[in-house]
Amino acid sequence: MNERPATPLLDQVDEPADLRRLRPDQLRQLADELRAETISAVGVTGGHLGSGLGVVELTTAIHYVFDTPEDKLIWDVGHQCYPHKILTGRRDRIRTLRQGGGLSGFTRRAESDYDPFGAAHSSTSISAALGFAIANKLAGRPGKGIAVIGDGAMSAGMAYEAMNNAEAAGNRLIVILNDNDMSIAPPVGGLSAYLARLVSSREFLGLRGLARKIARKLPRPLHNAAKKTDEFARGMAMGGTLFEELGFYYVGPVDGHNLDQLIPVLENVRDAAEGPCLVHVVTQKGKGYAPAEAAADKYHGVQKFDVVTGAQAKAPPGPPSYTGVFARALIAEAQRDETICAITAAMPSGTGLDQFEEAFPDRCFDVGIAEQHAVTFAAGLAAQGMRPFCAIYSTFLQRAYDQVVHDVAIQNLPVRFGIDRAGLVGADGSTHAGSFDITYLATLPNMVVMAAADEAELVHMIHTCALHDDGPIAVRYPRGNGVGVPLPEQPMRLKIGEGRVVREGKKVAILSLGTRLEEALKAADALDARGLSTTVADLRFAKPLDEALIRRLLTGHEVAVTVEEGSIGGLGAHVLTLASDEGLIDTGLKLRTLRLPDVFQDQDKPERQYAEAGLDADGIVATVLKALRHNSAGVGEAGARA
Amino acid sequence: MNERPATPLLDQVDEPADLRRLRPDQLRQLADELRAETISAVGVTGGHLGSGLGVVELTTAIHYVFDTPEDKLIWDVGHQCYPHKILTGRRDRIRTLRQGGGLSGFTRRAESDYDPFGAAHSSTSISAALGFAIANKLAGRPGKGIAVIGDGAMSAGMAYEAMNNAEAAGNRLIVILNDNDMSIAPPVGGLSAYLARLVSSREFLGLRGLARKIARKLPRPLHNAAKKTDEFARGMAMGGTLFEELGFYYVGPVDGHNLDQLIPVLENVRDAAEGPCLVHVVTQKGKGYAPAEAAADKYHGVQKFDVVTGAQAKAPPGPPSYTGVFARALIAEAQRDETICAITAAMPSGTGLDQFEEAFPDRCFDVGIAEQHAVTFAAGLAAQGMRPFCAIYSTFLQRAYDQVVHDVAIQNLPVRFGIDRAGLVGADGSTHAGSFDITYLATLPNMVVMAAADEAELVHMIHTCALHDDGPIAVRYPRGNGVGVPLPEQPMRLKIGEGRVVREGKKVAILSLGTRLEEALKAADALDARGLSTTVADLRFAKPLDEALIRRLLTGHEVAVTVEEGSIGGLGAHVLTLASDEGLIDTGLKLRTLRLPDVFQDQDKPERQYAEAGLDADGIVATVLKALRHNSAGVGEAGARA
Repeated sequence: MNERPATPLLDQVDEPADLRRLRPDQLRQLADELRAETISAVGVTGGHLGSGLGVVELTTAIHYVFDTPEDKLIWDVGHQCYPHKILTGRRDRIRTLRQGGGLSGFTRRAESDYDPFGAAHSSTSISAALGFAIANKLAGRPGKGIAVIGDGAMSAGMAYEAMNNAEAAGNRLIVILNDNDMSIAPPVGGLSAYLARLVSSREFLGLRGLARKIARKLPRPLHNAAKKTDEFARGMAMGGTLFEELGFYYVGPVDGHNLDQLIPVLENVRDAAEGPCLVHVVTQKGKGYAPAEAAADKYHGVQKFDVVTGAQAKAPPGPPSYTGVFARALIAEAQRDETICAITAAMPSGTGLDQFEEAFPDRCFDVGIAEQHAVTFAAGLAAQGMRPFCAIYSTFLQRAYDQVVHDVAIQNLPVRFGIDRAGLVGADGSTHAGSFDITYLATLPNMVVMAAADEAELVHMIHTCALHDDGPIAVRYPRGNGVGVPLPEQPMRLKIGEGRVVREGKKVAILSLGTRLEEALKAADALDARGLSTTVADLRFAKPLDEALIRRLLTGHEVAVTVEEGSIGGLGAHVLTLASDEGLIDTGLKLRTLRLPDVFQDQDKPERQYAEAGLDADGIVATVLKALRHNSAGVGEAGARA
Repeated sequence: MNERPATPLLDQVDEPADLRRLRPDQLRQLADELRAETISAVGVTGGHLGSGLGVVELTTAIHYVFDTPEDKLIWDVGHQCYPHKILTGRRDRIRTLRQGGGLSGFTRRAESDYDPFGAAHSSTSISAALGFAIANKLAGRPGKGIAVIGDGAMSAGMAYEAMNNAEAAGNRLIVILNDNDMSIAPPVGGLSAYLARLVSSREFLGLRGLARKIARKLPRPLHNAAKKTDEFARGMAMGGTLFEELGFYYVGPVDGHNLDQLIPVLENVRDAAEGPCLVHVVTQKGKGYAPAEAAADKYHGVQKFDVVTGAQAKAPPGPPSYTGVFARALIAEAQRDETICAITAAMPSGTGLDQFEEAFPDRCFDVGIAEQHAVTFAAGLAAQGMRPFCAIYSTFLQRAYDQVVHDVAIQNLPVRFGIDRAGLVGADGSTHAGSFDITYLATLPNMVVMAAADEAELVHMIHTCALHDDGPIAVRYPRGNGVGVPLPEQPMRLKIGEGRVVREGKKVAILSLGTRLEEALKAADALDARGLSTTVADLRFAKPLDEALIRRLLTGHEVAVTVEEGSIGGLGAHVLTLASDEGLIDTGLKLRTLRLPDVFQDQDKPERQYAEAGLDADGIVATVLKALRHNSAGVGEAGARA
């Protein structure tokens, strides 16, 4: 049981306006209390800890210096925003973070005026801040757009696209580069090396450096505007940095835990900048909490934990995670075939590729937060004889959709996609849900789209991917643990487009794709108990469909229901289209499609989210019974009419 | 009638191997002949001219210096590849460019070993070249990856993502930056300004500069490797350019029309570079053809033309283009509502926003080739009270799919999408087809998806977008000209999710979405003539569906057919899903869905492509008749069984 820390100063701060009434010399204590409160809250809820601890001082300084919420503060990704939430009127709910009905683990417009732009995917903040800045400029309103973005997020193309367009915003745009040399994994690539050189080659801006480097904050009459502009511009331009070359004034590096540096720098930037500014702040992820500082991933995402010892609640023992099964299966394939290689976009541990990298360091590529590049790079590798696996979460693969279409599918190249976090994901909420990949992939010619029903199926499907040289192929699997089936000693190569019947019945057919199979089998038991003999098939493939099997199931049963962990346009739509193309629907077909609802579902435990969607055993049974009643009614009416 | 130019040297060159047998002093003449042949061919076929003319010398030099096709030459976008095609065994078919069955207007793997990677969308070349380079490195094979990329394409995020990862390739990666300060429109943003400063602040590398700046090409024994490395590295590093900061050796600028400069520079880069190299080549779009040099867009895309006068074949007079109608309608809306603004990703004239920009320069944003930024920037603008229209081609919106999902749809922000080039596009082929947007947008909660049936409908839909403040809304419309209906004096605000019945009948219902309406009406006439009284509805909305209308049409007719200019998972799938959800299919429904086929269709005239897809009047009629026969047969069989 974690005790609440004593927070006498923080208790006086409900909103940034309260913060701004404090004296500068009180801010150090406030930041300490804010850190303690953040640790205490995440100890209860679990969630992202290290990144929030790294920006306690920065959060304090920004709200102290800028006029939030009129100045629009946009946290990139948003997983570092817990201290921000505490300071912006949400402290009373901070121990509901990531729980059903509670505060989001990311920024969210619906939650607060202090969250002008929701986030969760990386690298959107500069584009959004630019939007706010330009809108204010056009309307002649005051108010800046302030993006706080990590060094890892800076490697994504869209951050660069936004920087390339920054000049139009003038001094209404401020980008704060939160350089902690650590996103989820250590960052990679040329930009990261460059930032390290930049930090190591310069002294932190001290008070003397400040006076030299940025325009002195003096009453306007003392400086004429032209002189100030010139001085400021020269001060800024002396760096010759990459950011300056793209049109920013560069200020930094600044020690992001030193409020005596941060506050005057931000005040100067606020008042004196004549164009878009990039403030390079160096922070330490996990700062101020020993267990976090000591951990390799700086406590990026944690379970509930004991604040004193840092010991995290252990997950109950259970079957292996799909991610782990994927990784081990892929390693086994790579031992057999040396052309197999693997690509991750900054998620080596999330995708399990950290294990692959240990086994095959030369054949594993972490490209940084760069899904677009990841996929086209894979296409290039495939065109030259390699057999790459792109391991990307469903929601992040959206970032590379055009590359999947244009570089992989059109060219029919053997790129394999391991799509983790498919379906609903629980506490991360709608921004991380993998809802659309069946639909957006199965509409593409040449694609093969599989979904694993359990961890043994995943092993077979990885093997099938590994041997599929005819074109692109994807396998999706969910977040979390398998169902506990034994893993196969030898993986099986599945025939492309061939499903399997798991359970034979006569009256009802459930056509399942993915890990709802377990619920489908439960539903079948319940239906059997009601005298409705039920077949359950695992279609395995959303594309190509097992047409023969589907034809047989649709025509050989009174009711058929498709079940998938995805939105409209996916498996159900493809089965309906087949039934329509072949005229199977002409003489009546009690076919229903269960899918994710047409809303972005809020965070909750996945099982509750699926129940809400009608995608559990009860939902399947209810759908079948309703279809049968509908049918009976229909027949009755027809009879009455006859 | 254009005469063929005399090309005595070019006539001896079938493949690069022939070229490499020429003496260096013959290359100038060869390049001149290659230029003349390119002009002559495009005079016959139309197509992209200016970009090809700009790289005649570069194409010659690359194939002369490098060992293509073992060295993999990847043209970014690929529209500059006509001279490359002439030099790589395809001269005999060069006058079939962009015609049905002819050569593609872009690079294409199926066409030639000299096209190792197909392209058409911008900025993929560095990622792909890196894939080739790394695959060779892993296999211990020789062979470099050479990407030729324009300065405009460099503004796209994925080029930056790839540069950030270049170091791993070592000297197997060469990026040739083809800087012509002109993609389709003048480039914008910080990078463009930076390149201009770079070019203007340095002399072109002359022979003396070469000797100073890059390692001298001498027999290996004369230099020990370490010394050469060091010298080369120092030579390269003196620039301190943005590219160097990302891990490249920078060489340049080089005059891209001077073979005496180009060839030794490329030879040195080939032999001496110790890491990834970026060669900055300055070229002139349209070079060497006076009418092209004089044109504002440098003859980017042209009709057939007279080589002597430069006069292009005029399109026959006809109705206005959808693009033009969109632009004028948007201007009218913007006159009424000052929060309306418009965003293009480097396609001001292609989207018609050049007209909008003339009217509202402050409210028009060309963000460069940066679709991801465009959409999230729009989301930021919308969140701060503006009402942005993103005008992006269907195929390019794929680049911003995650931004549409994560930044616009989840946040339910009023961003409006003007989706040009929806459906099949003819000569540009499958890479430019707008086939998937209905599917990938209509699966998203909160989205409204419309398709205009004709140019008057487009005006109403733009007006509807302009007044729709509740969330995102998209309207799709095709390439080419309207059908000739009068444009409305006053636009109508459509009710969201309400279709219209265009023609009432009794037996057959055609549910059309988009500009196939014309063919649907022709089909209806043909069906009527056969005694099959036909209703035609224009559904207008793929999402939300007009459920009441669809219910009535499906239940009130013997056969219903949906028609859309998109792939599986779109309108037809949504109508089928509705019919299934409501149990309408239970007692029999002769419902068919006409859609694009499950293949990437090759370039051809759009009307032929649509005929091939069964999406013309004949195809609709055939589908209806087949469904009726199926039905009769079914009834007959049922009767026989009864």
